[in-house]
Amino acid sequence: MELKTLNEVEINLVTSSKINQVDFENLTFGNIFTDHMLVCDYKNGAWQMPSIVPYAPFMIDPSAKVFHYGQAIFEGMKAYKDQQDAVWLFRPDENYKRFNKSATRMAMPEVPETVFLGGLKKLLEVDREWVRKGKGNTLYIRPFMIATGHGVIAAPSQEYRFMIILSPAKSYYSGEVKVLIAEHYSRAANGGIGAAKAAGNYSAQFYPTKLANEQGFQQIIWTDDATHTKLEEAGTMNVFFRINDTLLTAPTSERILDGVTRKSVIELAKRENIDVEVRSVLVDELVEAAKNGSLKEIFGAGTAAVINPIVGFSYLGTYYELPKLENAIALEIKEKLTNIQYKLADDTFGWTVKI
Amino acid sequence: MELKTLNEVEINLVTSSKINQVDFENLTFGNIFTDHMLVCDYKNGAWQMPSIVPYAPFMIDPSAKVFHYGQAIFEGMKAYKDQQDAVWLFRPDENYKRFNKSATRMAMPEVPETVFLGGLKKLLEVDREWVRKGKGNTLYIRPFMIATGHGVIAAPSQEYRFMIILSPAKSYYSGEVKVLIAEHYSRAANGGIGAAKAAGNYSAQFYPTKLANEQGFQQIIWTDDATHTKLEEAGTMNVFFRINDTLLTAPTSERILDGVTRKSVIELAKRENIDVEVRSVLVDELVEAAKNGSLKEIFGAGTAAVINPIVGFSYLGTYYELPKLENAIALEIKEKLTNIQYKLADDTFGWTVKI
Ligand SMILES: Cc1ncc(COP(=O)(O)O)c(C=O)c1O
Ligand SMILES: Cc1ncc(COP(=O)(O)O)c(C=O)c1O
Repeated sequence: MELKTLNEVEINLVTSSKINQVDFENLTFGNIFTDHMLVCDYKNGAWQMPSIVPYAPFMIDPSAKVFHYGQAIFEGMKAYKDQQDAVWLFRPDENYKRFNKSATRMAMPEVPETVFLGGLKKLLEVDREWVRKGKGNTLYIRPFMIATGHGVIAAPSQEYRFMIILSPAKSYYSGEVKVLIAEHYSRAANGGIGAAKAAGNYSAQFYPTKLANEQGFQQIIWTDDATHTKLEEAGTMNVFFRINDTLLTAPTSERILDGVTRKSVIELAKRENIDVEVRSVLVDELVEAAKNGSLKEIFGAGTAAVINPIVGFSYLGTYYELPKLENAIALEIKEKLTNIQYKLADDTFGWTVKI
Repeated sequence: MELKTLNEVEINLVTSSKINQVDFENLTFGNIFTDHMLVCDYKNGAWQMPSIVPYAPFMIDPSAKVFHYGQAIFEGMKAYKDQQDAVWLFRPDENYKRFNKSATRMAMPEVPETVFLGGLKKLLEVDREWVRKGKGNTLYIRPFMIATGHGVIAAPSQEYRFMIILSPAKSYYSGEVKVLIAEHYSRAANGGIGAAKAAGNYSAQFYPTKLANEQGFQQIIWTDDATHTKLEEAGTMNVFFRINDTLLTAPTSERILDGVTRKSVIELAKRENIDVEVRSVLVDELVEAAKNGSLKEIFGAGTAAVINPIVGFSYLGTYYELPKLENAIALEIKEKLTNIQYKLADDTFGWTVKI
């Protein structure tokens, strides 16, 4: 499949690229951006002409609603380069659909496909040198929308800005990941915005995560806020548990982000004849399985982190270490998934889309 | 009591004021700002020199964390002018303390009192003409802090901007306010950020509120997200229920904002020998009281809306209208409270602070 490009776009290119100043071997996630960005404003009830311009700060009013009421959503995607120098996206339609789902939940206007996907294609054409060849190299893509309308009254904005910025990236987490199971703090409410990629969901996790970091845990696995008995997801990853030879993962709900990686893992595992159960996983069940040795693996799944093995978890003050396996499902699935993404294996699912 | 002013501040005044362009009799809440604003940046682990500058848009990076992760908090206060042209604040220390509580919950640095309260005093000295005399006229004060650090990785920012902007205001709501009792959507999670004045809490309510508006209701009274049986608060107001001659209001919790108006109403009511019970109020109890006629009043309490009588509520598709009372407690309390704020009555509580 190939994406349609955006033709109605103003393009203003940089006079000289900063690509030669970038050390692509030593990248910290998300802090270097490419030469260009896409900008498209919404006003008077309509999306205006998008433009591709040099990446740069922009002017905004102090009373812009994004600052006061947090009307802001985003997506996270990646571009991959194959051995023939072609650039590919992974299931971009899923991100596009989810973006507009988030928009609706946050009372923001939907972004047209031509602007989101067509604009992304155009932007990637302009900055294609920034996508590096070789497995593990990616260009992280951050489409986002913010409320730019003025006024300190708590009501939806009348004006918005949609942007896409691009950041060359290698891996997200480095080092071992130990997690804490949430006992008190929560990520999302029933009837809340947990299923939306809304900005406010992330800062809400910073303080509890800081407390976890101080205790030596990199991430928190969130539980349902009402009872703290059901395992939900991590801050930027959905989570899988392997008990004996079955993979378990929570069903998506209005509290859980419907991850693209998660659904791909489920499909891949099924193809590989691995048992997958999508059902509520109880904290008690996890602890029990850790105790009796049937808990083999826990791993996170998300675009940024790809597949992230977890080495142990803590609950109510007790730390449970996971076995070190020779043939972990996490690594098998990661290999299969990234081979599809980098076009090193047949994409029997039709997930990859050429730029 | 009088506030200390901020001496260490750079001041850059406008060359000509825009005050003469403002129609103070016809103000829409929160969309006109005074000539100046206060700005103070946090970087390298420290607050920098604050400055008072002309109100204007400013430059910000597209990857600023506020846009992606919603690290943003605010406060809402008002300045009042008395008959002798002195300018007063109402319990500003409460807003200052709450701001820093919000900061901690959102993993943001605390703002020093000299910057928050001292800076506010200085700013109000500069823009004091914008505070108009006469009951009902106020200058709405919006201190806020946003994460300005760069980078699309979900972790707390290293840089922040604190600002104060000022907006001349009359009333917040105009017309009758009917409310919907939340049956499905929620405002806050247990272990979440509901008690913080975090930006993300507000946009989360826009979509459900829009649905309520479409059904003819101006506001939602939120219920606990786990069971939807307990009445909590409205979008920007705490809520009081009068059953017979007792005022009921929910206790504050990690799901409910600890409102300054709410606590002032409680103290005022006690002084007036009105029975006040701070306890969980059940939806069922409210419906029952509406049916048997013991429900006399519902009103919201908040800085922007002051005391806002509610004329009726809807629950599970049934609309319950409240009686029209001659001597409503809401109006009595509003009168007493605003008389203190405008220095028309003795402030026996010591709530008012002179600028
Ligand atoms: C809260 C949350 N859960 C899960 C994920 C994983 O989703 P995806 O696989 O679509 O990247 C993400 C990241 O996007 C996330 O932010
Ligand atoms: C969610 C919420 N509840 C209640 C209030 C009322 O608080 P206060 O009386 O301090 O203005 C506000 C407004 O500040 C609010 O935003």
